[in-house]
Amino acid sequence: MIKSIEWCGSSVRFLDQTLLPGDEVYIDTEDPAVLIDAIKRLKVRGAPLLGIAAAYGLLLSLIPMRTASRDAFLVAADRSADAIAASRPTAVNLFWALERMKRLLRLNPHNAPDELFDMLQTEALAIHQEDRAMCDAIGVAGAALIPDGANVLTHCNTGALATGGIGTAFGVLYTAHRAGKRIVVYADETRPLLQGARLTMWELQKAGIPGVLITDNTAAWTIRTKRIDAIITGADRIAANGDTANKIGTYNLAVLAKEHGIPFYIAAPSSTVDTSIADGVAIVIEERSGDEVTRSFGTTTAPAGSSVFAPAFDVTPHHLISAIITDRGVHRPPFRGLVQR
Amino acid sequence: MIKSIEWCGSSVRFLDQTLLPGDEVYIDTEDPAVLIDAIKRLKVRGAPLLGIAAAYGLLLSLIPMRTASRDAFLVAADRSADAIAASRPTAVNLFWALERMKRLLRLNPHNAPDELFDMLQTEALAIHQEDRAMCDAIGVAGAALIPDGANVLTHCNTGALATGGIGTAFGVLYTAHRAGKRIVVYADETRPLLQGARLTMWELQKAGIPGVLITDNTAAWTIRTKRIDAIITGADRIAANGDTANKIGTYNLAVLAKEHGIPFYIAAPSSTVDTSIADGVAIVIEERSGDEVTRSFGTTTAPAGSSVFAPAFDVTPHHLISAIITDRGVHRPPFRGLVQR
Repeated sequence: MIKSIEWCGSSVRFLDQTLLPGDEVYIDTEDPAVLIDAIKRLKVRGAPLLGIAAAYGLLLSLIPMRTASRDAFLVAADRSADAIAASRPTAVNLFWALERMKRLLRLNPHNAPDELFDMLQTEALAIHQEDRAMCDAIGVAGAALIPDGANVLTHCNTGALATGGIGTAFGVLYTAHRAGKRIVVYADETRPLLQGARLTMWELQKAGIPGVLITDNTAAWTIRTKRIDAIITGADRIAANGDTANKIGTYNLAVLAKEHGIPFYIAAPSSTVDTSIADGVAIVIEERSGDEVTRSFGTTTAPAGSSVFAPAFDVTPHHLISAIITDRGVHRPPFRGLVQR
Repeated sequence: MIKSIEWCGSSVRFLDQTLLPGDEVYIDTEDPAVLIDAIKRLKVRGAPLLGIAAAYGLLLSLIPMRTASRDAFLVAADRSADAIAASRPTAVNLFWALERMKRLLRLNPHNAPDELFDMLQTEALAIHQEDRAMCDAIGVAGAALIPDGANVLTHCNTGALATGGIGTAFGVLYTAHRAGKRIVVYADETRPLLQGARLTMWELQKAGIPGVLITDNTAAWTIRTKRIDAIITGADRIAANGDTANKIGTYNLAVLAKEHGIPFYIAAPSSTVDTSIADGVAIVIEERSGDEVTRSFGTTTAPAGSSVFAPAFDVTPHHLISAIITDRGVHRPPFRGLVQR
């Protein structure tokens, strides 16, 4: 399996995702500034992966402080956490992981720096391990829904490049493949940023899973003519009633699944479920710069001054979702289980 | 209105479409080789427009032959027609227009070169004029279906850049706008070749019609959140029962129209109806090179060796089509009128 990031005792090894799909280059570094720069430049990306990277970055910065005074250690930890937090100011997982590390320092007011460092190292590895286990649980739960010989359509990137493990929707496909099921995965290229073409197609190749790339607008014709058996995507946020926000284009696929009578599955960590919001109407959809559409690959593809509607996500109404697969199992409509947990 | 091509008495003026949407450059030439080269390099493109360009190209080559012997004139006409036909070997409209011109020579075996030239000039202008009139008729018929204040979604390019007039689906929108209806047109970018982003957005700007560009996978969310009132596209081929082959992604839009309870319209010349085929099953779909998907922005966007499914067209089943608009009027399901005409 691809290891997008790894703690190597006194260094961090990570895959430079900006060089994909052309080159597979891993960077080993003991310098937290190199890792922070990598986060800034999207060499390391994907919400769960950013949390893990933040924890490892904090560790790197504290290696030389293990023999310092306790006060100096704490000052260094604060300073480093601030620098890491500033690298991607909207990445919630990053703040969450740093807060989890800093909480450990507050809970242990009497330990020496080397003891604190060991605790932080254990915590960082736990953050990574929990994410890996979450992916595995989603994979096992979801793989049961994928028949042997299935053609499955997916969207965006939800694999090892975005998480600390095998991924969410991708993890389901990976687990089914590893269990010996002969599946073929059709991947939407996923405009405007092409995560499907650049990242999912690469992950499919690495995993030895037969993959076929299509443009997003080929999805309907592919379902009709290539006997697609199921569609599976990830999720960014799931409301209490099952309405699901995910990468733009997901709602489109859910409508197509209904028209063609095939199941539409969402796979995501149970932490993605936000029971504080009753339904999808309450989910605010981020709008991205139109430049991502008109200038995304070094070529200007629309006239100057073009108006662009470029939402980052859409919301799929729960009635179009056949099942929501989380690390806690498979949730079926009417999705009451989502609220109870 | 944009004049993509124009006969100027002894020269041809055409818009170099390869420089769009960046620059609007018109080329005036008396040299048929320049026009043939422009067809080869896609500076002039679009099925109906190619027919018109072929006729004008033949004319250009015969200007110096008006004072030659009849035999020399006929030899030159044959040679020039062959050269033009070889410029885009799969462009049916090109052969059709050249055949129409050559037929005139066969039907008039006794006329002198200058008389023949005048007949050919009249014929070429008629080919252009008939296409223009066809567009106008489609526009008038279709505009009646577009309400004042409508938000309309369209796909690919179907305007003045593809025809000798105002276009087909675009012509409907253009006619509605000129009639004072306040419409907003949402344009799919239309991967892989982005005709919507590059050409339709440019035509909307030129016509002063408010336009908004979206990626293809944003269509469903746009329909849901931007109150789209109707979807209209062109057609490449229409079977006797109304099944319609058109640019990949059209079928996707037809499914979305059904789910959201809005009309889905096709606009095309009546010559697009092929009553020799009973239904869409008989329509062979051209598959394009995967390179158009993986290398279209000047950057390689998928890993080497990726399998790609890249059909140029899809077929929309007639039951998803609300009306087919041709130069002969508006045809409603069950589309029996398509057969009768």
